[in-house]
Amino acid sequence: MKAVVSLNSGSSSIKFALYGLDAQGSPSLSAGGKIEGIGIAPHLVARTVDGETIFDRNWPDGANLTHADLLKELFDWALGHLDGYEVVAIGHRVVHGGTQFAAPRLIDEALLDALDALCPLAPLHQPHNLAAIRAIRTLQPDLPQVACFDTAFHHDKPLLASRLAIPRALHDQGIRRYGFHGLSYEYIARRLRDIDPALAGGRIIAAHLGNGASLCAMRGGRSVDTTMGFTALDGLMMGTRCGSIDPGVVLHLQTQMGMSAAEVEQLLYKQSGLLGVSGISSDMRALAASDAPEVEEAISLFTWRAAREAGALTASLGGLDGLVFTAGIGENNADVRSRICRRLEWLGLEIDGLANAGHGPVISLPDSRVKILVIPTDEERMIALHSLTIMEKRT
Amino acid sequence: MKAVVSLNSGSSSIKFALYGLDAQGSPSLSAGGKIEGIGIAPHLVARTVDGETIFDRNWPDGANLTHADLLKELFDWALGHLDGYEVVAIGHRVVHGGTQFAAPRLIDEALLDALDALCPLAPLHQPHNLAAIRAIRTLQPDLPQVACFDTAFHHDKPLLASRLAIPRALHDQGIRRYGFHGLSYEYIARRLRDIDPALAGGRIIAAHLGNGASLCAMRGGRSVDTTMGFTALDGLMMGTRCGSIDPGVVLHLQTQMGMSAAEVEQLLYKQSGLLGVSGISSDMRALAASDAPEVEEAISLFTWRAAREAGALTASLGGLDGLVFTAGIGENNADVRSRICRRLEWLGLEIDGLANAGHGPVISLPDSRVKILVIPTDEERMIALHSLTIMEKRT
Repeated sequence: MKAVVSLNSGSSSIKFALYGLDAQGSPSLSAGGKIEGIGIAPHLVARTVDGETIFDRNWPDGANLTHADLLKELFDWALGHLDGYEVVAIGHRVVHGGTQFAAPRLIDEALLDALDALCPLAPLHQPHNLAAIRAIRTLQPDLPQVACFDTAFHHDKPLLASRLAIPRALHDQGIRRYGFHGLSYEYIARRLRDIDPALAGGRIIAAHLGNGASLCAMRGGRSVDTTMGFTALDGLMMGTRCGSIDPGVVLHLQTQMGMSAAEVEQLLYKQSGLLGVSGISSDMRALAASDAPEVEEAISLFTWRAAREAGALTASLGGLDGLVFTAGIGENNADVRSRICRRLEWLGLEIDGLANAGHGPVISLPDSRVKILVIPTDEERMIALHSLTIMEKRT
Repeated sequence: MKAVVSLNSGSSSIKFALYGLDAQGSPSLSAGGKIEGIGIAPHLVARTVDGETIFDRNWPDGANLTHADLLKELFDWALGHLDGYEVVAIGHRVVHGGTQFAAPRLIDEALLDALDALCPLAPLHQPHNLAAIRAIRTLQPDLPQVACFDTAFHHDKPLLASRLAIPRALHDQGIRRYGFHGLSYEYIARRLRDIDPALAGGRIIAAHLGNGASLCAMRGGRSVDTTMGFTALDGLMMGTRCGSIDPGVVLHLQTQMGMSAAEVEQLLYKQSGLLGVSGISSDMRALAASDAPEVEEAISLFTWRAAREAGALTASLGGLDGLVFTAGIGENNADVRSRICRRLEWLGLEIDGLANAGHGPVISLPDSRVKILVIPTDEERMIALHSLTIMEKRT
């Protein structure tokens, strides 16, 4: 059976999924898993679509194992155990496509060089994405690989939504608002066309609320604005990231409090957000179980800011027809959805408490002027679909 | 005739206004002026309320003259020429009152010490405010002086609107969203109560659009949210300031492009905003006279961002009843007002083109769900009023 693999390679983890192709060439998930703890004590687990664990290995002393080493372990195992599958392509999530790449691309050396040049725009993510691609090129030089960009869905948004109010020369050098979570939003736009084609043609805000979080304003299924900007630090409050913050704070921490740029980066990416305000956890599930006042404050701030940013994106859209929740928090946390929607009642949102408790898909009341939905996202599937499209174009 | 003086002392200029008090103790403007070019080639001009120039002096070689030196020149002249007036108090705009000062205060040494301690929160402004106060204490030790804080109007806004998503300890150390232009917003809230008491009790966004620019969300005349945050750099795009910008940009300029924190500060405060995007001018009047595409882009971005932030503040308010334009651009630029209002039609704003061209005061159509007004601001008068109130309490 032909198959495609999706890979999402981060700084300390690699997620993978295997999709078998049916006679029509349509992908369905066969197995998936992840490698976690890279650089500390790696742990690899793979399961079938039915949840059966088919591979589980720990490297307690494996702090020195690189992404490449661990991908080799995964490949060695897979070659011996997935003999019913012929992998025709591996698709990768690549965080940054810069100004140049508006669509997925088949990977070759020239593309890798171009993507290397974008590393300064996403120094915490892009190098890991590219390391995984290069590791697989070494292991299987003839296996086609596809780069799917998290920025691509936002590539053609209006200029005003891409521009920062800084000197023109810096914009021309690439310092602009890109936006991320594009594979998630593209999947949501696609699913919405299936679920509610009329609504999909309208003015939609998709709320990708996970450990990373952003909103995307879509008109007719295309991005017209988003809360993340030049980096994945901007916009909504997140698990450990601050989201939008006065640039004067970044300068103050350095010039008045003696922090280095690297220390500020660590603070704003890793110690802020839900973790920083609650003082307890970055994980909304852990917070939901606490009744500490700091936790209530963290959740209130998270939802207040999400509603505030939804107001801003509604201005970009010139009104709102639908709000879609997705990703870990968006799909599973009825309380967070309810708080955000209640703060947006002035926009015509009326949430259906019972439907919301059941996690949708439609969670608005029938008379609600703005329709509210919960749609699970699937970035891995989007990567698989893109990879297949690229392979079809190639033949 | 008894009188009060308002002083607004910036880095390179000092604005002043003299208010005579009538028999009821109500202030009316008698004369005013400014000292500009401090540190380069100072120029002092004073005019009566009728526009007659009563003092005009240049110091072409006066780059070494300090704020104190120039205030002495002003006092020496005033003592000889304003003999009909008895100045009973001088009120100062002080940019930062920190977490402590929610209302104007009579100045003494203890207060000056406390305000010195706030200089790290506003290093570009606070020291100049305090320098003027100290200069006058030297010249006239017995003359009562009053500090009026630009942050005070926002002091009691809800905690969520004050909190950044950073570790709690930093919030407790004062790294929070303060908000500025408070004397302007307080004046607008007061005027709105006179002009339209019913509306003043509702949900209002005041748009202070000058060289510095911000929005304030008011409910019942009190600030509940504002676009400026920890510093005067955040929020709207301004004449030379960037407004909101991904904190990742600040870090990128340093870690990837080798700029120092001081260089980034200079870039974001002085070379960005309308000036940076247009490449031509920070002054909306100069831009309005140009048909360069970069200028059109700068004005579009300014108005798009103002509408976007108005959407965000409407979420904070839970709906909108009125929008008030004020300050240089807000009072005088019908095109900017029209562009912002048209982007907010989805909120129920309907602008009256003719009334807008005539600069108001009411510029919405009678059926507009949201009322739109132009109200000239007067921070100097607000300072005079506060100073009188403090003096009355004292007696």
